[in-house]
Amino acid sequence: MARWAPGASERLQRAAMELFAEDGFEATTVAGIAVRAGVTERTFFRHFADKREVLFAGESVLEKVFVDAIAGAPAGAPPAGPLVAALDAGGRALQDERGRDYARTRNEIIMANEQLRERELLKLAKLSHAVTAALVARGVADVTACLAGELVVLVFKTGFTRWIAPGETRDLVELQREGFAAIGDLARAET
Amino acid sequence: MARWAPGASERLQRAAMELFAEDGFEATTVAGIAVRAGVTERTFFRHFADKREVLFAGESVLEKVFVDAIAGAPAGAPPAGPLVAALDAGGRALQDERGRDYARTRNEIIMANEQLRERELLKLAKLSHAVTAALVARGVADVTACLAGELVVLVFKTGFTRWIAPGETRDLVELQREGFAAIGDLARAET
Repeated sequence: MARWAPGASERLQRAAMELFAEDGFEATTVAGIAVRAGVTERTFFRHFADKREVLFAGESVLEKVFVDAIAGAPAGAPPAGPLVAALDAGGRALQDERGRDYARTRNEIIMANEQLRERELLKLAKLSHAVTAALVARGVADVTACLAGELVVLVFKTGFTRWIAPGETRDLVELQREGFAAIGDLARAET
Repeated sequence: MARWAPGASERLQRAAMELFAEDGFEATTVAGIAVRAGVTERTFFRHFADKREVLFAGESVLEKVFVDAIAGAPAGAPPAGPLVAALDAGGRALQDERGRDYARTRNEIIMANEQLRERELLKLAKLSHAVTAALVARGVADVTACLAGELVVLVFKTGFTRWIAPGETRDLVELQREGFAAIGDLARAET
């Protein structure tokens, strides 16, 4: 029954992250991950398409957090309302669920491999599109929604980079709010 | 004397763009580009590291236009001053020098090839860093300068995408200004 045990996905993720950190992403095999997690390779492939996708397992969950926050933001709020709601919800999910140490480890693995860096960029592009689509569904005009999707990802990305920097103690939600406000200051007061 | 003739670089660029558009990027060879331009392969390699770099020959020029505009913006202006100056200068250079049709052709070539898409992303990342460095040199704080670099590239990228869209007639500078103002509206009025 082991291969159907609940938590196989979590065990596989933990095993994969350990091996990526110990041996590097390239040198890690699916067979090795399965052995460390105590499951068969077939079980691995029931949960993940390949070893790369282990690092992106939370992608659709995070996207949904952003999208749901936009859909649930009060109607008639200022344009920034749904954006800040999405950033707060996404930031809270990341900091509370897996936490800063996981994010740091994952980031180190990704930055060391070009294929993973590209996959990470694709993830952010998809997040931007998801935010745009959620705003369009609220009646926001296409051009504005597109800019807003890019803006949300910019604030998320720069907030995230600061959050995982060595010695940083402030939480992600706070850093994102500060970044959002700074963008407002930068884009204000001209033209 | 042909291989030292002035304009060899321009002839090589034109020949390469024609062949990329006709045969695709992958199928085009340096030898073929040199033949069409009427120069030797050695001449090609005096001007470009490889066929990919033909598409990115304007990169450092464009970066310098942005950086010089920031350096030359009046002191004591609002934070947006140097950013708008950089976008105006960069937008004007693109629309006036090579124009919209060139930009459309180049974009089609790049979007059709994954390696070129990555190289384009790298170009934008370098532009963002150059803007950040130029702002830091003016005394802007690191975090703000980093956000501003990302913001400038966001406005440039989304303005550029609109500029080359089918049927678009407004110029790049105008579209960027509109995008910049829209970001200001989006990031305003909250928190």
